[in-house]
Amino acid sequence: MTQQQREALDTIFRNGALDIGGDPAVQREVFTGMLTSRPLPDDVILTPSVIGGVPVLEVEVEVEVEVEPVGTLLWFHGGFYVLGSPRTSAALASDVARRTGMKVISVDYRLAPEHPYPAALDDAVAVYRAILASAEGRNSGRDVVPDPGRIAVVGESAGAGLAAALLVAARDQGLAMPAAAVLFSPYADLTLSGDSMKTKADVDPSFTAEAIARRAVDYVADADPADPSISPVFADLRGLPPLLIQVGTHELLLDDAVRLAARAAAADVPVSLEVTPGVPHLFQAFAAMLDEGDAALVRVAEFLAASLVATRS
Amino acid sequence: MTQQQREALDTIFRNGALDIGGDPAVQREVFTGMLTSRPLPDDVILTPSVIGGVPVLEVEVEVEVEVEPVGTLLWFHGGFYVLGSPRTSAALASDVARRTGMKVISVDYRLAPEHPYPAALDDAVAVYRAILASAEGRNSGRDVVPDPGRIAVVGESAGAGLAAALLVAARDQGLAMPAAAVLFSPYADLTLSGDSMKTKADVDPSFTAEAIARRAVDYVADADPADPSISPVFADLRGLPPLLIQVGTHELLLDDAVRLAARAAAADVPVSLEVTPGVPHLFQAFAAMLDEGDAALVRVAEFLAASLVATRS
Repeated sequence: MTQQQREALDTIFRNGALDIGGDPAVQREVFTGMLTSRPLPDDVILTPSVIGGVPVLEVEVEVEVEVEPVGTLLWFHGGFYVLGSPRTSAALASDVARRTGMKVISVDYRLAPEHPYPAALDDAVAVYRAILASAEGRNSGRDVVPDPGRIAVVGESAGAGLAAALLVAARDQGLAMPAAAVLFSPYADLTLSGDSMKTKADVDPSFTAEAIARRAVDYVADADPADPSISPVFADLRGLPPLLIQVGTHELLLDDAVRLAARAAAADVPVSLEVTPGVPHLFQAFAAMLDEGDAALVRVAEFLAASLVATRS
Repeated sequence: MTQQQREALDTIFRNGALDIGGDPAVQREVFTGMLTSRPLPDDVILTPSVIGGVPVLEVEVEVEVEVEPVGTLLWFHGGFYVLGSPRTSAALASDVARRTGMKVISVDYRLAPEHPYPAALDDAVAVYRAILASAEGRNSGRDVVPDPGRIAVVGESAGAGLAAALLVAARDQGLAMPAAAVLFSPYADLTLSGDSMKTKADVDPSFTAEAIARRAVDYVADADPADPSISPVFADLRGLPPLLIQVGTHELLLDDAVRLAARAAAADVPVSLEVTPGVPHLFQAFAAMLDEGDAALVRVAEFLAASLVATRS
């Protein structure tokens, strides 16, 4: 039904100027240009802020009547820990905010190679801790700060791997779990050992294994790429909240998603893995032109609504 | 939230008289008694019939106004290919029929050890062929026969493995695919090689690996248990319709579900894997006493509605 849409998207990626493996300074510009060329809808409000000492970008959709957001999405952008920013994922984040009635806090975590592991994870934990702490002393002023049952963590690509690592770290530090997590095409194995790194090489229009390997070195630096805090496919996931993992089959990273779901299942974590054939990495960002992207985001909204209700009841 | 419900269900299974590995004649009685002890709701109509030379049981929910069912669920019961019948799964089948507005045709396929592989698969293919054939010459008389886009295949346990094998066989024979398939806790690896056969031994309240192994021999007989038509975790799943696979984590068969989903993903099949923690095999049959079972069937209804619409549009 949407063969034409899928082919159009594939062409866009194959003809793009992005070279994930290229010089970081140059590719950051290309990445940002690619993902911010289309203006955001007029009703999207971006507010830079600092939480827990870490810069964040709040992403909200203006509504005519002032309504309290039903919860907060703590968002982690993609870019292989080297590229990207909250601004590059603001389009998708605002789309999810619109569909869910939630407010996004998008974390501008430090990037490699300037700041390798564990900088990004430290930033993620700092923001999460600060949100939880302010939840305890809340109801001062106009800002409504969510309790953990009204927070969901969302990540895209490297941001999804980071989100999973954050949940594991938060659990280990005795912090309350959020209500749920949504992981879009998680990059969760920096040893790059998934079969799909080879089997999907011809159909992934965005990346090559060599380019990803170059960026993995930037983030891992002197650490062990198999460290579960770097590669959550190897982590003990026990105690994590419900996970929704979405992935396309035209992805080198397909097996990251599949193995993360398998790992979660083995550890008694509620998990839904949703595989959409014939679509590339982060196809949800193209919901406006791709029916599969729209359908996936419908499911995200359903999942978040169900998870937040379940936690609150 | 439903810890108590889960414990109650666990106790029921642990104290049950069913011994999957016991004498087939005796255990068939126990199995039937266990699953048919509670009467079906008054508005459920069971109609024995024969399709394609194979006995079936039609399961419908009577509605006050006569409404055309939106589609047909071709249903395969569980019981490790040795136990069970359409009657033993009529409660769950009628629940799904009620939630979806669909009519169930439940196949009374031949059982092992009297009829080992490929008897069950031959029966499944015969019924599917006959339904497709009558779809071509339809609109005679009162029966409305569905086109393939209005058929979904549903299986429980061994019936889910059989449903997957049917889809592969149908594809290989050039038959049209149904709109979708729902696989409840599929038994899809008769080599019993899943990690969960060991790791979940203590928490699965229903089965032991030894008992399952005894029944596997009954079905496999002189064939190869790794034959993809017997163990669809080893099959090429390319071309299959959207799959919804649901499984609990208190199951020896957890990894059958996980690996079948992984296999489908690798073959560009649209697949959703939904893992519910702390619940046993076929927990959906206990939706009336278990919130997780109800939630899972809500998702089944959503999935079927979306799949049938997508195919028809």
